[in-house]
Formats: sequence, C-alpha cells, structure tokens
Amino acid sequence: LTGKLSPRALSIVSDSGYTIEDGTKRIGGDLSRMAEDVIVRGDLKGFVELHIEQGAFLEEEDIDIGVVQGIVGIEWWNVTLTGTANHAGTTPMNRRRDALLAAAKLTQAVNEVATGLEGRQVATVGRMQAFPGAPNVIPGRVEMSLEVRDLETEKIEQVYEAIVARADGISEESGVEIAFERLDVASAPALTDPAIRDIIAAAAEDSGLSFRFMPSGAGHDAQDMATVAPTGMIFVPSRGGISHSPEEFTSAEDLANGADVMVRALLAIDAL
Amino acid sequence: LTGKLSPRALSIVSDSGYTIEDGTKRIGGDLSRMAEDVIVRGDLKGFVELHIEQGAFLEEEDIDIGVVQGIVGIEWWNVTLTGTANHAGTTPMNRRRDALLAAAKLTQAVNEVATGLEGRQVATVGRMQAFPGAPNVIPGRVEMSLEVRDLETEKIEQVYEAIVARADGISEESGVEIAFERLDVASAPALTDPAIRDIIAAAAEDSGLSFRFMPSGAGHDAQDMATVAPTGMIFVPSRGGISHSPEEFTSAEDLANGADVMVRALLAIDAL
Repeated sequence: LTGKLSPRALSIVSDSGYTIEDGTKRIGGDLSRMAEDVIVRGDLKGFVELHIEQGAFLEEEDIDIGVVQGIVGIEWWNVTLTGTANHAGTTPMNRRRDALLAAAKLTQAVNEVATGLEGRQVATVGRMQAFPGAPNVIPGRVEMSLEVRDLETEKIEQVYEAIVARADGISEESGVEIAFERLDVASAPALTDPAIRDIIAAAAEDSGLSFRFMPSGAGHDAQDMATVAPTGMIFVPSRGGISHSPEEFTSAEDLANGADVMVRALLAIDAL
Repeated sequence: LTGKLSPRALSIVSDSGYTIEDGTKRIGGDLSRMAEDVIVRGDLKGFVELHIEQGAFLEEEDIDIGVVQGIVGIEWWNVTLTGTANHAGTTPMNRRRDALLAAAKLTQAVNEVATGLEGRQVATVGRMQAFPGAPNVIPGRVEMSLEVRDLETEKIEQVYEAIVARADGISEESGVEIAFERLDVASAPALTDPAIRDIIAAAAEDSGLSFRFMPSGAGHDAQDMATVAPTGMIFVPSRGGISHSPEEFTSAEDLANGADVMVRALLAIDAL
C-alpha cells in the first residue's frame, strides 16, 4: 500500500510455516500486481485511524478522546557490562568489580534520566542476564537491553546521551566497562498532520467531548500511512490499558464517541 | 572420616556417570568397613591444614602467614520480585510496577548493607533474570539469588534482616512484592580451635614471619575435621587470589614459610 514491502520481507517464514509470499498466494493474492496498489503522495486527501488507546491515560484522566500527535519512534541498544568474575567467598566487598552491581546502578540511572526530563519519553530495561550466573560467583559480565521511545528523534538521542553520561560515571567508580551497541531495529517517529489533528480536536469539541493531544506509544497502521498521506488518529479509552487479551474492554458509549468524532472529521477533511 | 557421609550421598551420580559408591568400589574401596574409619572426638589431639589463601588479602597486605579463625558459614536465598508486566510504549514512567527496577535497587541495597557494617561479611547477588525478558516489555517478575557469608551465624542473620528491611522499603515505594525463600544448602560457620590458633601464631612469630588472623571465605577439609578434633589452618599468599586454574601461583619462599610454620605448630601441639 505504501510501497515499503520488500521482496526480502515476502520471503520471511512466519509462525505458520509459510513465507508471507506463500500465505498471500494461498488467500488469492496476486503479488505480480502489488505495485499497482502503491499509494503515491497526493492520491489521498487524508487518512484517519480510530483505535483504543492501549494505555490507561484517557481512562485515568477521565478524558473522552485522544488526538494522537504521532507514533513514537523506538531505538534499541544491547548493553554489555564487563567486570571480573570472582569467588564470592574469598573476594572482599571492596575488591570486587561486580558487573551486576554496575548493571543495577545503570538500570536505576535509566529510570532517573527518563523521569527527570520534561515530556512523555519512556526508557525501559526489559532484559537482564548475569554471567556466569551462579549464586556463589560475583558476575563478571551482564547483558541488558535498553529501549527509548519518544515522538522526537532528538529527544530519544538526548535521553540516550544522558544515560551514556551516567554509565561513564558508574564505569569510572566501579571499574566495570560498559558498552552500548545500537541495534538495527529502530523505527522513526511518525507525526500526524497538524491540520487533521485540529480537525479531530474541533470534531470532539463539536460533539461536546473532552479531548487531549497525546502521543501513541504503540505502533499503528497510521505510522505507515503517514508516509503517503496527511494522517490523523483518534484514541478512545481502554479499560486498564489492556489490549490483545480477552480482558480488552471499551464501553459502548466510548466506541460511539469515537465513531462520531471519526465521521465529523472525515466530513470536515472532505470539505477542505 | 567424620561420619557425615550418608547412604544417600553415596548414591549421587557424579559427572563421571558413576555414583560415588560405584566410584569408590572401582578404586578398591570397601564401603562395608566405612564405619571403622570414623574419627571420634578425643581420637585426635589436633588437625592442622596448610593451604593457599585463594584470596588476594595476604599478597596485597604483604603478610606471610594467615592464621585462619574459621571457615565462614554460607546462607542462600531465592528472591522473587513480582510487579506488573506491561507494554513499554504505552505505560508512562509514573504508572509502572517494574520488577527489574526494584531488583536493581535491592541489588544496590545488598551491597550497601554488606559494606556498611563493621567486619568481613560478604553478600552477593550472582544470578538475576527478568521475565518475560523482552526489550519492549516492562518486567513483571524477577528471580535473583542472594548469598551471605560470615564467620558468625548471628552476623549472617543480621545482614539478612537488614536486607529484608531495605526490601520492605523498596516494595512499599514501588508496589513490587519481594519474597525471600531460604534454601536448604546452608553450611554453618566452622571455627578453628583458639589454642591451636595461638600455637600457629607463635610458630609464625618464632620463624620471623608476619601474620594476621583472618577468616576463610572458601570451604576446606578443616571445616569437617573441626567437628571431630581441635583444628587449625594456615594460609600462605596466592598471587591474585587465583586458584583451580593454570594461573594459580605461590612462590617457593611462601611455600617454605608455610611448611616451616606447619612443622613448628605440629611439634608444639604434640608437646601439649
């Protein structure tokens, strides 16, 4: 649709055991005509997506409609901490180069950096493993993940630089080396169109609904559509922020509110 | 030798693929006569063990002889931290119950407690794993190990209680539950005999060698022999504290010093 799908992506084997190309053919798709469907900027006047928030912000703040400013960009790093593995019985506390203790300090630093700056950026350490990983051995190496998300690439870099500065301090104090490796899985922030944002906000207001401008922390179709058309996105509250689960729930009233804003927004875009 | 070997221990299959019972028979041992060799308290006047330190204390302090006060006791715990696994993109920093962040704070607390008390106790977190363990998911659960060693059981308990108090504070602040499970692998501290300690110290002095009373952080034969006979132990320096490795090294002079102190001590014990 946006022309981003590469031949290489089509050859990836999915969980079903088939490649995406095989699967597309099995449901009647004709890949030879794929190029005919690519949207070129200018083809569409606009694209608007309606979705549950998948976060608990609207519910907790008791707001009806989220006007999405954009889909956050994501950067991932592998972080490796290298100290000295040693006998936990014969190595006094003051003679240790404990990679896990340094990793613990870095994990706290990641949290402090992300919460200490203005804005809605998030930074997460989701994976951590100590080596050799025995209760009676001081860890000589730790592998951990770092993820940073924000609407602005500059903010992501600012958070990363601040974390690296904290890591340098921890490294100097502990004698543990800390290396960051940026992974090639980044997705750039995708901003929605300012005019469509304003149209959605006006539609909410006309419907007598409360609204708030906000980023989307999760990925959506809109992030790809934003590369070929002026794009907007509407959020409705989701209970507890739970999604992709039998627990997912949005009230009928909130669903109707979202549809109402969607229709008003589409009519307004059509009238542009 | 000390009567501690149980029939159950004999049936354990070792890395060789044989049980300890099989292996003992293969090298000509007669297990039916095992009881004949049990030493009863009073049989032996004393037992003295000579060993490299397996730590770097003597080398770094430039001391010739370590007079071992005892073999430290060891306690192990499994620590489970339970928060809420959540989407790292849609969950703001201030709405997280991040089990790994709490584990990071607890790991620092363990270090602070162990270094903050007088004495030579050590406390180590050697193993840590976050679940589900994906870079884009806030960890909902962490499993980590805790080991505490000291010459005194009371000190081990004091360290543990202080760590639990810190854990309670972290739990309250973060909303992450922290549970400690004591493992059944504890070994009690084994103190050497005060009279033999003094004999070893006097022997070092008579040989014109510097010495220091110190605990052994590693396990030794002496800890079992201490249950059936007055026991002493002599340490000589080991370079870098490295042992069980091709890098293990103690100078010929230090080896001779140790043997000299050993002979003088045995003669003195014999003359008691």
